[in-house]
Amino acid sequence: MTRSLWIDATGLPRTVDQTLLPFESREISLASPQACAEAIRTMQVRGAPLIGAVGAYGLSLALRLDAGDEALEAAFAELLATRPTAVNLRWALERVRARVAGLPAAQRPAAAWAECAAICDEDVACNRQIGEHAARLLLAAREADRERPINILTHCNAGRIATVDEGTALAPVYRLQRDGVPVHVWVDETRPRNQGASLTTWELAQRGVPHTVIADNAGGLLMQRGQVDAVIVGCDRVAVNGDVVNKIGTYLKALAARDADVPFFVACPVSSIDPRAPDGAAVEIEYRDPREITHVRGFDDDAGAMRELRIVPEGTAALNPGFDVTPAYLVTALVTERGVVSASREGIASLLAEAGPA
Amino acid sequence: MTRSLWIDATGLPRTVDQTLLPFESREISLASPQACAEAIRTMQVRGAPLIGAVGAYGLSLALRLDAGDEALEAAFAELLATRPTAVNLRWALERVRARVAGLPAAQRPAAAWAECAAICDEDVACNRQIGEHAARLLLAAREADRERPINILTHCNAGRIATVDEGTALAPVYRLQRDGVPVHVWVDETRPRNQGASLTTWELAQRGVPHTVIADNAGGLLMQRGQVDAVIVGCDRVAVNGDVVNKIGTYLKALAARDADVPFFVACPVSSIDPRAPDGAAVEIEYRDPREITHVRGFDDDAGAMRELRIVPEGTAALNPGFDVTPAYLVTALVTERGVVSASREGIASLLAEAGPA
Repeated sequence: MTRSLWIDATGLPRTVDQTLLPFESREISLASPQACAEAIRTMQVRGAPLIGAVGAYGLSLALRLDAGDEALEAAFAELLATRPTAVNLRWALERVRARVAGLPAAQRPAAAWAECAAICDEDVACNRQIGEHAARLLLAAREADRERPINILTHCNAGRIATVDEGTALAPVYRLQRDGVPVHVWVDETRPRNQGASLTTWELAQRGVPHTVIADNAGGLLMQRGQVDAVIVGCDRVAVNGDVVNKIGTYLKALAARDADVPFFVACPVSSIDPRAPDGAAVEIEYRDPREITHVRGFDDDAGAMRELRIVPEGTAALNPGFDVTPAYLVTALVTERGVVSASREGIASLLAEAGPA
Repeated sequence: MTRSLWIDATGLPRTVDQTLLPFESREISLASPQACAEAIRTMQVRGAPLIGAVGAYGLSLALRLDAGDEALEAAFAELLATRPTAVNLRWALERVRARVAGLPAAQRPAAAWAECAAICDEDVACNRQIGEHAARLLLAAREADRERPINILTHCNAGRIATVDEGTALAPVYRLQRDGVPVHVWVDETRPRNQGASLTTWELAQRGVPHTVIADNAGGLLMQRGQVDAVIVGCDRVAVNGDVVNKIGTYLKALAARDADVPFFVACPVSSIDPRAPDGAAVEIEYRDPREITHVRGFDDDAGAMRELRIVPEGTAALNPGFDVTPAYLVTALVTERGVVSASREGIASLLAEAGPA
């Protein structure tokens, strides 16, 4: 099984440029801290767990160039600034920094590198655990008729390519597939960057999972009409009260799920919980380039090339918040590698207590 | 003031091809019943009131060719089949048919033509009344701070070009503008056909109304964060229990409005009420071409031409429902030309009672 992030024959991290998917599968080498930072900033890599892993390798590569404390802090700050919302980035950077803190400079690069490999391996194991727990919930959400596929709706991409492998929200889909349970996924297009239309479709097709893409606007109708057994999404950050910060539009699907009595699950590695965020309102929302709204990228089949088209009158103002907050009361459960908990202060506290001292 | 539908120097109805806006403003002649049907079917004209008016002219033009009962019924059926959801189409067609029913064939074309002109004039007057009533509601929805603009969010296009003139949901915006009250409109992109991004932006820019386009996914966050004073949308059909059938995604905005305690208004000409529909669930939803989901149209500024791009992997399945149902309990009020009523059986009954026998 190919990971989304791997070490190539030259010993350097390598990934696929996700800004070109699904139209072109181009590998890129993450050969320097700058390459790692740039890949995160330009969203060649995206998805909270994958961002964390790439950030960790970026810090590790920086230590190869200069293992001193000052360089470490500078690289840490530069990498952290690339994406403000995904808390896994901070978590992974802090983990590498903590690992090397007590070591002499000469030992730091190797120790950091080993830590990166551990982060990657643990991500895959974590996601498999999430898949295990979430698969049980999805099986229970399907109505009595066991002959038909389980209909799952997901927003954005919290799949294999948002992680090192296996995905978070899509992990149970792959798990059910391995178990021979028929699954069908409604894929939200996920404007403005269309990660659903371009990435979730792509990876589900690669694995042969039946799926149908829909406009972000359509999920409410499908839930009203009984065509969705469960919604499952990933998260960029979960506050200690259980509020979920995730891709813009997630909140609207959570509202529709509640209105139609459809369970709404959040696949949440414990590393996505931000102990610094008392609630969702405290999380700074990233506002991205308005051009993502005013223009759409896609493939021109006539020309055989990617292009960008303008979809508004020239000079139209646009606002582009990247994330929204799904209040804890709309979340049926958080599915973590340590088990399923309620999206509440108590649920989160039980997870963090299990973690022991950091 | 230029209408969206007018009679040109040759005595034939004329309109602007809305599939080319905002990139090109090309007039088309609606010179035959077929041209009217085609314009509706291909969405060169759209918006429930405008569809009704164009349908009426189509029937009227058919009577010029053959004013017999058989031809009348055939033209009626052909025009009605062009768009299944907008009840105004049926209403306008029935109005023309009823007007000519008792007349000898020789008098039918002129009588039908006069009825079409009346439908158009009444649409403008109706929309001005809606604007008057809705403007008062929007003024009341603004918080105490009278210095700042009223922030309105709208979905799709229920503006001037969805009607003969003035718009339904946008009528109060133009009314407030004439009264010198500052207004700012958040414009939902409205995937998959992008009527917000392409049409609402265009007509607001033409009239100098400040506006900002957002992804359909963003409205929930804006409401959560207090950036929306009121949501106002149009409707394609309102059931007798107050359920509102409107552009796909409307329901999600209504859910967010309720969650954030933002008023959610529906601009609703009485002609949009369907006495045949007991509730929203009874309304057949139009499923449109999946290509509207898998491809996006826009303007290639480099080439100076409109193009279509594919945004999903080749062969991806898509589902494209055109409308959803906003349950009556999410609607703060229906704003009609006859006044403001609750979205309820009682509210609707009071309107229909006022109408007297049809």
